[in-house]
Amino acid sequence: MRARLGILLSGRGSNFEAIARNVLNGKLPCEIALVFSNKPEAAGLQLARDLGLPHAAIKSAGVERTAFDAQVAALLKEHRVDWVCLAGYMRLLSSTFVSQFAGRILNIHPSLLPAFPGLDAQYQALTHGAKLTGCTVHFVDENLDNGPILLQAAVPVLDNDTVESLSGRILIEEHKIYSEAIAWVLRGDYRIEGRRVLKI
Amino acid sequence: MRARLGILLSGRGSNFEAIARNVLNGKLPCEIALVFSNKPEAAGLQLARDLGLPHAAIKSAGVERTAFDAQVAALLKEHRVDWVCLAGYMRLLSSTFVSQFAGRILNIHPSLLPAFPGLDAQYQALTHGAKLTGCTVHFVDENLDNGPILLQAAVPVLDNDTVESLSGRILIEEHKIYSEAIAWVLRGDYRIEGRRVLKI
Repeated sequence: MRARLGILLSGRGSNFEAIARNVLNGKLPCEIALVFSNKPEAAGLQLARDLGLPHAAIKSAGVERTAFDAQVAALLKEHRVDWVCLAGYMRLLSSTFVSQFAGRILNIHPSLLPAFPGLDAQYQALTHGAKLTGCTVHFVDENLDNGPILLQAAVPVLDNDTVESLSGRILIEEHKIYSEAIAWVLRGDYRIEGRRVLKI
Repeated sequence: MRARLGILLSGRGSNFEAIARNVLNGKLPCEIALVFSNKPEAAGLQLARDLGLPHAAIKSAGVERTAFDAQVAALLKEHRVDWVCLAGYMRLLSSTFVSQFAGRILNIHPSLLPAFPGLDAQYQALTHGAKLTGCTVHFVDENLDNGPILLQAAVPVLDNDTVESLSGRILIEEHKIYSEAIAWVLRGDYRIEGRRVLKI
């Protein structure tokens, strides 16, 4: 039985695209069981449609978090999702949702956490004057951009960088390490000690 | 007239040693005008003695910060110090001291700031489960491990790392980028925009 991924996104879904490519070319031994968005107009949903992948959307605007997350969790369970991958999903998950997929939710963040958590991480890095930033794949808990770290990649900040140019170079690394991290959790040869994710 | 460095240290002074080597071999176009320690027993002071460099110590224990810093500033002025390099100087500088050498104090910190400021940065990175850490050379202001960043270098955290092994690998990078940053400020071809240090 191949593992079944649920991808949650709110926007373009470029990380979803990179993951999908690696699933389709056989580099990631799993299936994409569902692509879900809290925004029906998300470009990532159209991509799922184009790729012939199961997809769904529920508008989150105006809905109470716990109730909304319960609907999303039910959808994921219905599609027998084993692993939840956040790919630009612009919502904090309720603790009920997190506990239903305990240790099976991954996220990617465009900074070297714990530096620059939250929104606009690339802008934060640029205006802080960091000379190195990057991206982080981590397990998700109820706290924002927290949870044990699986992989990180560094990206230099250049003097002539804009938020756009820096974000673009970070994205290239995101697309690599997110699939690497998914491959790692699917192999299952890791253990968690405190906050450390170690290879077995 | 060659620029005159004042090195402030509290311990072994391995960064001082790396800087001194680069001064002596002509890679850094400056002189070490004074090596100062707030701990008379610091190994770094013995090294300064062995290298025939001007050195001094004043015990900081029990002395009020502003009064102590005034003595240190007077010593540095007496030795006509242009640039102050902190090299494991385990004291926060008073704002009076900082303003006397405004924009002319550098520090090195064993993490990729703003991640893991303060004491035991390598232990912090290890227990946080970071997969990448490193070191940062920055201008010093009155706040701890704050001030515009000149250079950063990344160092991977390995599964079998201890604080000692990780600290050792970070030190190798510290010894490189501290001298690079000093060479840069001595050339003077930088400008500061907000928090960003940019090459002219």
